[in-house]
Formats: sequence, structure tokens, C-alpha cells
Amino acid sequence: MSASIIAIDAMGGDFGPHCIVPASIACLAEYPSLHLVLVGQPSLIEPLIARYPHVDRARLRVEPAAEIIAMDERPAQALRGKPDSSMRVALGLVRDGRAQACVSAGNTGALMALSRYVLKTLPGIDRPAMVSAIPTEAGSCQLLDLGANVDCSAEHLYQFAVMGAVAAEVLGVARPRVALLNVGTEEIKGNQQVKLAANLLQQAQGLNYIGFVEGDGLYRGEADVVVCDGFVGNILLKSSEGLAGMIGQRIEAQFRSGLGARLIGLLARPLLRRLRQELAPAQHNGASFLGLQGIVIKSHGAAGPEGFKSAIRRALAEIEENLPQRLHGRLGEHLL
Amino acid sequence: MSASIIAIDAMGGDFGPHCIVPASIACLAEYPSLHLVLVGQPSLIEPLIARYPHVDRARLRVEPAAEIIAMDERPAQALRGKPDSSMRVALGLVRDGRAQACVSAGNTGALMALSRYVLKTLPGIDRPAMVSAIPTEAGSCQLLDLGANVDCSAEHLYQFAVMGAVAAEVLGVARPRVALLNVGTEEIKGNQQVKLAANLLQQAQGLNYIGFVEGDGLYRGEADVVVCDGFVGNILLKSSEGLAGMIGQRIEAQFRSGLGARLIGLLARPLLRRLRQELAPAQHNGASFLGLQGIVIKSHGAAGPEGFKSAIRRALAEIEENLPQRLHGRLGEHLL
Repeated sequence: MSASIIAIDAMGGDFGPHCIVPASIACLAEYPSLHLVLVGQPSLIEPLIARYPHVDRARLRVEPAAEIIAMDERPAQALRGKPDSSMRVALGLVRDGRAQACVSAGNTGALMALSRYVLKTLPGIDRPAMVSAIPTEAGSCQLLDLGANVDCSAEHLYQFAVMGAVAAEVLGVARPRVALLNVGTEEIKGNQQVKLAANLLQQAQGLNYIGFVEGDGLYRGEADVVVCDGFVGNILLKSSEGLAGMIGQRIEAQFRSGLGARLIGLLARPLLRRLRQELAPAQHNGASFLGLQGIVIKSHGAAGPEGFKSAIRRALAEIEENLPQRLHGRLGEHLL
Repeated sequence: MSASIIAIDAMGGDFGPHCIVPASIACLAEYPSLHLVLVGQPSLIEPLIARYPHVDRARLRVEPAAEIIAMDERPAQALRGKPDSSMRVALGLVRDGRAQACVSAGNTGALMALSRYVLKTLPGIDRPAMVSAIPTEAGSCQLLDLGANVDCSAEHLYQFAVMGAVAAEVLGVARPRVALLNVGTEEIKGNQQVKLAANLLQQAQGLNYIGFVEGDGLYRGEADVVVCDGFVGNILLKSSEGLAGMIGQRIEAQFRSGLGARLIGLLARPLLRRLRQELAPAQHNGASFLGLQGIVIKSHGAAGPEGFKSAIRRALAEIEENLPQRLHGRLGEHLL
């Protein structure tokens, strides 16, 4: 594997450099050809690096950036008012070819606005979409958009479908089944945008569009790519995290409900731990912004070091697969 | 308990009278003061009743209705083209005071359109909303709308919030915490309708509006009433069902992954069965149409007899609580 250079927005997320620096250093140990550029305030970052005296500083550089974009800051304000934010400087490194990908746990709206401004979208794409793999009964499916675009037109949903299909192909799924998320599978169901998007997709050449899929069908693995607007996708993703957490808690409670139950719980613990790891959000952390002229990975703002490492791994995989270039090459076949 | 009379649309749902007749007869045995009117085609219904020779026919009547509304039929067609459908005749019994509630597993859109036409909404309510209790870490929360209104304005969301709050109070929650479902808790987050609805709710008197809740916060029990449009609510509900099913399958798979695991699985089976029952969709089946001048309960179309019985039980509870009358009395305090 040739060297990969990833620019890390070290100031983003709920925990900032306190989470991101240890996660970054752990990834350097795991991937010997990985180089990282931590972007942010050196006075905050350097003391955290200094805690790891054995870190290979030839592969870990700090790029100064004075400003921080707050998690609740308006994207327009982040775009106009903060030319020296850690997020923007990190994206600039990708634009200038000094890094091959950017990873940030910061403000999603700001990351989207800055990515579009700094990196630009691929020809034919109006808005990038956030996509991530979610586990299903059949394996996994690519779900998009996950929250970058809360108000979407039918044309946007159509472009998301095309991008999701191409990304799934690049990731190894032959003739991925593409579906629109809807409240029913009958043709008359759905809101206005979904019905119009279905019309567009029915006419699309070369896409394996299979129609509507419902929320339960998604988890049954009825499609390889599931398309929705960012409002719906974000709520689906977060409510699924919440429900999985609640079920986990209730399982624990069952195994504490008496002496016999405690004993069985003790025996079952390794099995349940394995299950929890399979479903853990940290395992699936790291959503990709599809449709940009560069690789941008969004980590969950609340992700801990394990989650942030997953996001870095996803960036590495997309670098290896050359995803934006391959996406660009394939988009022309499908776009209206 | 005085006698309660419920009109049952015997022809609705994926399984029609084959599921609904046995479920109805089981409920009659469970509730000695319950009377049921099965509405539909007698030639299909009577032979199914005849399988239960001991049923108390003084409490079980069949009301003929010649037409059936298909699950994929357009609501407008159901409204205009089928004056003698089982759904419409059942709702007519409620309007005429011959039944105190209607339960249907049929086409949701048609049930909504016919309910509004036959029963009318309460003064000040534009559109009824579908609400159901969903389990949370803290107990349960009322989630609405669940799919009756896929395109909603801010005013609709506001009305849903008021109705959900009043219903939660009636069901015993003191000063229920009301939240809007959103993609973030910061004020700038969300789509246009949600932001506008938040403005309306912030100005509302007498409502315990607590702001935005995210998908994971909902399952953590951060609110007692969670409001969203029917597109989002339906997808949240069905994806949660799908995810719970998938986790159940994976637990089973873990307990089949070797001889030791099988043995532990055998021991753990009663605990897991109890958990599955707590979370089973059938336990929570039966969504209420809030905002009508009468009680209408929608059962899941795919519900089996156990699920349909839950829907009948929900109707019984709302009859006892006099929900529409109490809702009417409280709405005036809150509506704009």
C-alpha cells in the first residue's frame, strides 16, 4: 500500500482534540503507511500529542488553524465569517493535493457548505449526499441522505440514487438494487417528492431500480441502496441507534431479574458482547459525502475514539478505491 | 363496566375476516360486557363464526356491507366510488350512535378520508392524526403522526402537538413534555415546517413544550409526546419494527453458534421470550385517529389475531376514557 495522507479536523465533535488526538495516534500505529495532518490550534493539540512520546512524528504533522466552528453555528456564518477554521483548512489541504481525504466530527451543515465551496461538486451533481452502510438481515445497505440535505427535491433524490448505486458498485455489489424509502410499496403512496422521484427513476437507464421499500423492508435487506431525504435519513439512523441501545439495556435488565437470570447472564455475556459489537454505532461510524471532487468523511459528533478510528478507516478505504474519480467516470452514464 | 359496542371492519387488512373473526371472538370471551358488530360480506363472515359454536351471538352481530376497499385503492376512489364498503358502514354505525368505536385494519388513507367524511373532525382540527404509544427507556411515549398525513404544514404539526398533549394527559401523564422530532436539538436545525412549528409552539400557552428531540432521544424517553409528519413517523415506526426483528434474529443466531451457545440459549429462552413480548409489535398494535368526533382505531394491515386483539383493547380503553369528548373539552384552551 502506498502512503495515504489524511487531513483531520482536530477541533470538531463534542470532545474535540481530547478524543481525536488519541484516535489519530492509534490509527497511525495500526496503518504503517498512513500519514495524518491534525488541523487546529497547536497550543491545544501539541500537549495531547506529547502524552505519546513514541509517536512517529514523521507521519504526524500539525497544521495551524486559529478558528473553531461551533456545533450549533449557522453554515453561512461558518462559510463567510471564519476563513481560518480547522474544518476549512483541512478541506483546503485536500483541494491542494496535500491530503487525499478529510475527516471531521464537526457541524454537519458547516462541513457540507465548506466542502461544496472548497472542493466543489462533481459535474452534474447539485448537492453532495451523506451515505453510510447500515447493517441489515442480508448484510448491509447503503442509506442516503443521512442529514446533509433536509429539504430535497425529486431531482436531488434521483441524483442520490445514482450516486448511491455507483458507490455500492465500487464497494463490490454487482447490479445493486436501488429503492426509494416510502410509507408503502404501492405506487400511490408517499409524499410529493417521493412520487416524482419514482417517476424519474422508472425512466432511468442502467439503474437497477426496484421501487419503494418501507422501513421494515430496509432492515430485511430488500435493497442494496436506499434513498431518502436527509431529514428522514437522519431520524431513521438516530432512532435506530436509540432503539438498539434500549433493547441492549432491556436485555441486561432481564439478566439481572433474579439469581437464576444472573447466572445465565454471566454465561451469555460473551455472546451478547459479540452481538453488541456487531451492532455498535462505533463500528459503523463514518459517513461519506458523495458527489464532491474529493473524499470527505463525517464522523458522528458524539463518537468516542473507537468511533473516530472507524471514520479514519472509511477514509482510507475510499482512498484505496479512488472513489471520487470512479464516481465521476460512472456518473455520465446515468445522469439526466 | 357498562356495555361497550365496537364496530369492526371485518374485511380490512392483509388477512381479512380469516384473522379478524377469530380475534373478535377471542375478545368477546375476554370482556363479558363487550358487544361487537362485524361489518362486511355475511357469506364470508358467517362460515368463520360458525366454527365457534359456543360464541354468544347476543353480543356478536353481522352488519352487511357489499363492498371492500382494497389496500392499494386511492382514498378518493374509496370515498366516491364505494358507498357500501365495510369500512364506511362501520364508521356510519359510530356516527349514528349504534357503536362507540370503529376498528379497521384496512387501507390507512381510505380510513382517514372516510373517517373525516363520515364522523367529521373536532372544531379547530384540520386533519386527524394517527397516534400510538411506543416503548422507551423511561416507559412509553405518544408518537404522532404515524402515517395519516404525509405532507404536513407547520400548523398541522402544531395541532398534532396539542392533540398529543391532551391525549397523554387523558391517559394519565401529568404535564406531558411535548417535543418536535428533528435532526438536531439546536434552534437552527430542521426543515422549514419543523422550524415554523417550533415558533408556533414556543408561543403556545399551557403546553409543556420542551423543544426538539432527536431520534435517539425519543427512545431515551426525553419526551412524553413526540410530534412529526406522517411520512417521518411511519418510517420511524416501521424501521424500528424491522430493526427489532433483525436484532431478535441475530440474538437467536448467537445462541445457535456452537454447542455451548445452544445450551446457554436453552437456559436464556424464557428471559428472551419475555423480552420479545415486551417489544412485540402486536403488543403495541392499534393506533388511534385523534381529532375526530368519534373513536377510530387503525390496526396494522399485517397484524395477526393477537395484534388485532390489541387494537380492540385500545378501542375499549378509549371508550372508557371518553377520549373524543375530553379532547374536545381541552382543545379550546390550546388552539390558536
